[in-house]
Amino acid sequence: MNVPTHILLIECPDETGLVHKITGVLYRNSYNVLSNQEFVDEDRKHFFMRTEFVGEPHPHLVAELQAVLPASASVRLTHTGKRTLVVMVTKEHHCLAELLIRSAYNELPAKIAAVVANHEVLRPLVEKFDLPFHYISHESISREEHEAAVMQVINRYTFDYIVLAKYMRVLLPPFVAAYRHRIINIHHSLLPAFIGASPYKQAFERGVKIIGATSHFVTEELDKGPIIAQSVVPTTHASSPAEMAQAGRDVEKLVLATALKLVLEERVFLSGNKTIVFE
Amino acid sequence: MNVPTHILLIECPDETGLVHKITGVLYRNSYNVLSNQEFVDEDRKHFFMRTEFVGEPHPHLVAELQAVLPASASVRLTHTGKRTLVVMVTKEHHCLAELLIRSAYNELPAKIAAVVANHEVLRPLVEKFDLPFHYISHESISREEHEAAVMQVINRYTFDYIVLAKYMRVLLPPFVAAYRHRIINIHHSLLPAFIGASPYKQAFERGVKIIGATSHFVTEELDKGPIIAQSVVPTTHASSPAEMAQAGRDVEKLVLATALKLVLEERVFLSGNKTIVFE
Amino acid sequence: MNVPTHILLIECPDETGLVHKITGVLYRNSYNVLSNQEFVDEDRKHFFMRTEFVGEPHPHLVAELQAVLPASASVRLTHTGKRTLVVMVTKEHHCLAELLIRSAYNELPAKIAAVVANHEVLRPLVEKFDLPFHYISHESISREEHEAAVMQVINRYTFDYIVLAKYMRVLLPPFVAAYRHRIINIHHSLLPAFIGASPYKQAFERGVKIIGATSHFVTEELDKGPIIAQSVVPTTHASSPAEMAQAGRDVEKLVLATALKLVLEERVFLSGNKTIVFE
Amino acid sequence: MNVPTHILLIECPDETGLVHKITGVLYRNSYNVLSNQEFVDEDRKHFFMRTEFVGEPHPHLVAELQAVLPASASVRLTHTGKRTLVVMVTKEHHCLAELLIRSAYNELPAKIAAVVANHEVLRPLVEKFDLPFHYISHESISREEHEAAVMQVINRYTFDYIVLAKYMRVLLPPFVAAYRHRIINIHHSLLPAFIGASPYKQAFERGVKIIGATSHFVTEELDKGPIIAQSVVPTTHASSPAEMAQAGRDVEKLVLATALKLVLEERVFLSGNKTIVFE
Repeated sequence: MNVPTHILLIECPDETGLVHKITGVLYRNSYNVLSNQEFVDEDRKHFFMRTEFVGEPHPHLVAELQAVLPASASVRLTHTGKRTLVVMVTKEHHCLAELLIRSAYNELPAKIAAVVANHEVLRPLVEKFDLPFHYISHESISREEHEAAVMQVINRYTFDYIVLAKYMRVLLPPFVAAYRHRIINIHHSLLPAFIGASPYKQAFERGVKIIGATSHFVTEELDKGPIIAQSVVPTTHASSPAEMAQAGRDVEKLVLATALKLVLEERVFLSGNKTIVFE
Repeated sequence: MNVPTHILLIECPDETGLVHKITGVLYRNSYNVLSNQEFVDEDRKHFFMRTEFVGEPHPHLVAELQAVLPASASVRLTHTGKRTLVVMVTKEHHCLAELLIRSAYNELPAKIAAVVANHEVLRPLVEKFDLPFHYISHESISREEHEAAVMQVINRYTFDYIVLAKYMRVLLPPFVAAYRHRIINIHHSLLPAFIGASPYKQAFERGVKIIGATSHFVTEELDKGPIIAQSVVPTTHASSPAEMAQAGRDVEKLVLATALKLVLEERVFLSGNKTIVFE
Repeated sequence: MNVPTHILLIECPDETGLVHKITGVLYRNSYNVLSNQEFVDEDRKHFFMRTEFVGEPHPHLVAELQAVLPASASVRLTHTGKRTLVVMVTKEHHCLAELLIRSAYNELPAKIAAVVANHEVLRPLVEKFDLPFHYISHESISREEHEAAVMQVINRYTFDYIVLAKYMRVLLPPFVAAYRHRIINIHHSLLPAFIGASPYKQAFERGVKIIGATSHFVTEELDKGPIIAQSVVPTTHASSPAEMAQAGRDVEKLVLATALKLVLEERVFLSGNKTIVFE
Repeated sequence: MNVPTHILLIECPDETGLVHKITGVLYRNSYNVLSNQEFVDEDRKHFFMRTEFVGEPHPHLVAELQAVLPASASVRLTHTGKRTLVVMVTKEHHCLAELLIRSAYNELPAKIAAVVANHEVLRPLVEKFDLPFHYISHESISREEHEAAVMQVINRYTFDYIVLAKYMRVLLPPFVAAYRHRIINIHHSLLPAFIGASPYKQAFERGVKIIGATSHFVTEELDKGPIIAQSVVPTTHASSPAEMAQAGRDVEKLVLATALKLVLEERVFLSGNKTIVFE
């Protein structure tokens, strides 16, 4: 029999004795703690803790914890296991394909509920995996109308996160606000370099020797959301913009998969505009 | 006033409630815990914990902790601050120079007490930094005699660790036993590949595309001690053995400095033939 | 109209003036040289050159070149464009999926003719891409019989290379000899470390801080063939063998794709047991 | 007897047959070519070639080459061997120490003629290596006066390059123009990210997961000069700005040493605002 693993996610203003108090509650309930990670953001004097434990959680566990913690503490009890995603794409296949394969072969604890696209080209790929593909063209309608149509479609599904797997349009603030901290993007540069469009053309023209990719939560400010993961590859004068883009695709798909895995395993806290990542 | 930081290093057989018990002792003594890291080696069912805290430790702190822990627990109380090193070298300068510079400019929490060499060539470098240089030739004496002579010299000093900064002779078991878990070596390959001599020649002949370096604790078995840190650099068919060696030197000096910093900051536990590294 | 690009691959004993003589032939034929790379293996005093040029090659180009080169020179004229692969697998999907996606989306200049497997589990993945899947069980037959059956199936296809995309059986010398220098493997370690089976278990037990993967040509000697590409990822004491294997899979699929791209673009020469890679 | 190695550096508008013509001149003069690298910048239709050869160059070699090349060709004949540097610093030791050690132990083909500083703190380090240290304070004088004073001092020396080894002041256009393409800087970020001051503070606040360093030629536009080399290290939420800076120092000194080695070995061409690096 497979005993389920639970995850406890606590954040609150920092004070002395927090770990002792929290582990006391767990100890008295006889949970078997598998791992325990803490961090204090010294700038914000804020405490973060992630604990994995085995054993069926007592119905009053969260209340018991809140009783020993500061009033403003956030206590979240969840479990390992699959989350559900909606994936948004435009025309590029590489990040979407990576997610489809990883989801199909349990390399990512995620089920893909649906794929939404503003172009048709990726439909055959999605249908190979027997998943719903929704084509919502942005042509001859306003940006607001397009996003309203997207929301209408995705809200038919129950999902945890929206993944922008090379969705090449900027989302408007109401859309971002509707799914606050639940939209994850892959950006084709090592942010904060090369913000905005055509980063490989920019990188080529600047003659850089390293290119990278960044996965981040989407916020109202373009390309400024909390960074979850980044990675790089070396490049040389001999690479064309097209070759830089190809190298970039390989980095992008792995960075996005890495970031998603961290988020889906509940390893990522937000602290202001930064992430705390308990690897 | 600079309040000293203390470090508590605990290891014992794993059981439920250890973190709660340990943090309870700290909490009752009103220490301000700066960071807390735990790990359980599931194979060996062994628990490791490293805690940094501010505040003068009560004289009975270790006894108090031992009272709540299993009888076989190891509890060590130490502090941040400089450790003392003896450095052993042969002819190559790069690792030694790195340690001399880092020690002189507080990039490494270490004071170098003395340098011992089986060749004279590095004397001018050591004397630039006003440190004792002991030349102990291995010629026309036995291996046992040579190591006895080295021990006689280094035992005049009080030191925490011996660093083999490209000391190109194998140490005999009695020497290793005399400084158990206190000798740190830099090996010129990504162990376990290319064990033994001439690793760059071996790497060149095998046509590898990546070369590396490994810093490890020295044990009786050559090149088999617990690994502390490793790093790599790419190489190509166009690199000669000499160029591979040069690239290797850059990796070696950084890997050794990295490993030493981890050890000197008391971030490394030994668990069987492996290390637990709390970064 | 898309003018085809041709590739000229020359190797011969080194002597003075080779580049001048070769480029002279090209110049007199008015080809537009796009790139030109040379290397001399100083140990073997052997010269290698790869030239890409635009323009329809004159029918006597190879003969003209041979006339100015040493008698033992090898001159090969080929072109950019797709090569054909047979892929052999066992049960793991990650390398196969990477090749299927890259082939389908022109990220690799390769067409997959067929997939041969000694287990059934990957059939659904292959059939998603409308490719032939041949299941040839190795059970209750000898190793020789099994490989004869495989050869019978793959020889129905015209193909350039066999890719062992996690084919978990050692191939016998007759099979290797039948496709000399045409079989490419992905090995789950940074060769020459952890030769043989269960490399992640070995890596875990040795407590390494870096794991890697190696793509190489297959030769009669197990895990000793010429290395084409290698890459690494860092790991820590906190990684289980399963987590190391998962990190390893991500490296493996990229290393295999990288090595294959180099081979398919005719950028890899063999020199003894090493590769010359013109990137 | 050590036969000197010569280096031929040619650049000109691209046209057909350049390699054949150039190698023809070398072949007729019976030089033994060790290596030969070419690149065409397709955007600028410009040809670059670097050739190493053994044998005393004929006095008319350059003229002979110019006779077969386009009128605007640049042909430069030089040799391997040491170049001379002036190093400018402020207070940080790590890059300077790296250059001192590498120069002293022939890890860099460079002799340091003098060190110029706008602070006194690095004098003891420089004097350990018996080199002139010129302290030129920038206090109570104008920026123009300060740079004039620096120029007066360094112009007493014959040197090839000025290395800004953490010289923390922006140089004015007349100074930059006086040593065009001869000033090499190390910038404490992966340009173009974090242009300007306090990059580690910026990196910390942005919550990046990777930090880097860039070595580049200095041009009139701050932080915009041609990039020679870049490298990165991973970082996490747990790193303070001070720890990021320390990690950054390790990257900086290696990137600067790498870039300098490339420049000193005459492997770097400038093409517009980019570099062509023949590794």
